[in-house]
Amino acid sequence: MKIAVVAPARSISQAGAARVAAFAALYYPQVDIHFDPQSFLEAGHFAGPDALRAESFLRAANDPGVDAVWFARGGYGSNRILAEVMPRLAPAAQAKTYMGFSDMGFLLGALYARRIGRPVHGPMASNVSERSGGVPVGRALGWLVDQDRRVLEPTLGGQPAAAFNLVILCSLIGTPWMPDLTDHILYIEEVGEAYYRIDRLLFQLANATQLKGIAGVRLGSVTDVPAGDTEAEFGETLDMMMTRWCREMGVPYLGRARIGHDADNMVVPFGVA
Amino acid sequence: MKIAVVAPARSISQAGAARVAAFAALYYPQVDIHFDPQSFLEAGHFAGPDALRAESFLRAANDPGVDAVWFARGGYGSNRILAEVMPRLAPAAQAKTYMGFSDMGFLLGALYARRIGRPVHGPMASNVSERSGGVPVGRALGWLVDQDRRVLEPTLGGQPAAAFNLVILCSLIGTPWMPDLTDHILYIEEVGEAYYRIDRLLFQLANATQLKGIAGVRLGSVTDVPAGDTEAEFGETLDMMMTRWCREMGVPYLGRARIGHDADNMVVPFGVA
Repeated sequence: MKIAVVAPARSISQAGAARVAAFAALYYPQVDIHFDPQSFLEAGHFAGPDALRAESFLRAANDPGVDAVWFARGGYGSNRILAEVMPRLAPAAQAKTYMGFSDMGFLLGALYARRIGRPVHGPMASNVSERSGGVPVGRALGWLVDQDRRVLEPTLGGQPAAAFNLVILCSLIGTPWMPDLTDHILYIEEVGEAYYRIDRLLFQLANATQLKGIAGVRLGSVTDVPAGDTEAEFGETLDMMMTRWCREMGVPYLGRARIGHDADNMVVPFGVA
Repeated sequence: MKIAVVAPARSISQAGAARVAAFAALYYPQVDIHFDPQSFLEAGHFAGPDALRAESFLRAANDPGVDAVWFARGGYGSNRILAEVMPRLAPAAQAKTYMGFSDMGFLLGALYARRIGRPVHGPMASNVSERSGGVPVGRALGWLVDQDRRVLEPTLGGQPAAAFNLVILCSLIGTPWMPDLTDHILYIEEVGEAYYRIDRLLFQLANATQLKGIAGVRLGSVTDVPAGDTEAEFGETLDMMMTRWCREMGVPYLGRARIGHDADNMVVPFGVA
């Protein structure tokens, strides 16, 4: 099995890649993980210029020898290559899995909108750290290599699902890149946003014409909220906000879920897992 | 002439209101400026609970004796009263001007979408400070009281225009609150956002189906960019970003404009001024 790692947004370090490669060599010796050299480039905010990130993604997606495209890291930037890459995906792009989260939601969403491949919300090839050890990376490989159902978000049932970072999902609203999520359970998570911003994003979610028809919403972790606008200062809890906006949307708020920017980020394949 | 001040988002101070009242008494003695007591309330992030802010706005908008509703301050929160207030606007709401900017773009946009009254992007009743003195407030009153064309954004011509804070405009995308801006010159400004966030917002603007058909875009001031993601660190200038996304949108980037979160915030009436 061959997994290609590319970085459509920000870059990863050689040291981080080496840690992931070592982990994989130990637990998944049969798997060939190829880190595209583009993943290590830096150009301003990005892992190389837009054109290069687009080529790197297309090379992996269109290679019939690659079974899965595993995104290296989020940050910001995968939206900037959508217009270039989406029309150029070849038949080989259909037959593979694409895994990542955060900013990668732009690509996962656009792929799902066009029914290309199997987009999966899950840990990335940079999610290896002192604190989390190999847990998230092991979980990602557990799905990519073995389709191990123990790594799935535990509330996933027979219903179709999709998972997004809230800011990224809201950035897709009103654009042709947004997938049709009718009858889906929508999983959202957030990182680094003040409560008033989360509330504003939920307003857009609740009022989005494109999202009428979703079956329900679950909230993952909300981490790294900046000082100065916590629950107490904002005056409402996350559950109050979720309840309010789901009511305005006319869909059930189904409670919390184990996805997000932490080591507990479980796997959510788009559609029916 | 009677001007009603209400605060659909955050509150203002009694001291600030007193400064504005003193300025108005000096230069516009014929004008009765009424600060709704709701403007001074505080409930968590907001100038009172949603229901109270909604009632305060409706009382001013539906009062046949009020000529203009002048918003007190932005922050966050006017989106939370849209569903309550918009269906309850009476015929008297048609005959008046509504002025504000920033978070007030939610109300201005929703009013313009329904062709209710005359929404105007301009300084608010809290825009009086040591640094700016009475200049922004004088400009606002210059338009509200005298329709003084010298306070208008200088590039306004015979074409319809609309002005928004970029985050607020993007929060309206994909929702029924977004006005039809076909053939309009769109003025945008931003405050307190990192460059990668501004770029992400411009992506959504450029890809928004609802905004196809606008005549062009102008950029106002971009202020208070947080440390750590300036032009240099992001790797692109504002003009590069504007040029890129306007090209992707297929509309001309018309250059800079004098609107924004600073003392130079000129007046942009929605539609043809």
